Amino acid sequence: MTLFSKIINGEIPSYKIAENDRFYAFLDIFPYTKGHTLVIPKIETDKLFELPADYLAGILPFAQPIAQAIQKAYPCNRVNILTLGFEVPHAHIHLIPMNGMHDVHLLDHKLKLSEDELRTVQQNILKFL
Amino acid sequence: MTLFSKIINGEIPSYKIAENDRFYAFLDIFPYTKGHTLVIPKIETDKLFELPADYLAGILPFAQPIAQAIQKAYPCNRVNILTLGFEVPHAHIHLIPMNGMHDVHLLDHKLKLSEDELRTVQQNILKFL
Repeated sequence: MTLFSKIINGEIPSYKIAENDRFYAFLDIFPYTKGHTLVIPKIETDKLFELPADYLAGILPFAQPIAQAIQKAYPCNRVNILTLGFEVPHAHIHLIPMNGMHDVHLLDHKLKLSEDELRTVQQNILKFL
Repeated sequence: MTLFSKIINGEIPSYKIAENDRFYAFLDIFPYTKGHTLVIPKIETDKLFELPADYLAGILPFAQPIAQAIQKAYPCNRVNILTLGFEVPHAHIHLIPMNGMHDVHLLDHKLKLSEDELRTVQQNILKFL
């Protein structure tokens, strides 16, 4: 079972943002910037483009209100999407607040936030969901 | 009219990869790596998450066979997706072949390919579509 399936099942705790029958969203605990959220399908597929058609069609509509809430909680030019996927073999989309091209350099460095800081980020986003 | 709408209309030439009634895919002429392709909706919306629901649901299923063709033409661990969107105010998804976490550094530097090289990349991808 992947790390992310354990998070979905509640075996591993997470800072949950949203969930429906097919997807789960939670804070990346090593975020590139405050508000950085992961969206994952509730099935174990390594690569995004290997997801079944209904998951591939559903993941961005599921992410949309979350991205809008992140943008309200952490004002930015836009919330961008990114897949990398080399660390956990369970498809996931990063939602990352960004303000300009220079913000590709956010990807060079992960923040280390305390549990309190992560809980505050979670609460700030949930206010707008 | 955005630069991308002019590309869709054919006013500005592009290395086209695929098209349907709602989306258009073409090579990024300043690619992060060979195979780097852009997928755009045929409507002018600045930000991805401002797209109408049917476009948001349709863009990854449209991109899926293109990503698979890119991966066959340019063998890699996976084709990742990325939005940045600060340079052209017309929502677009980058499809970028990647091999590991170190490939986030591809984003530091754009390649300068000749027209011949771009035409070859286009042909290599189209072979698998």
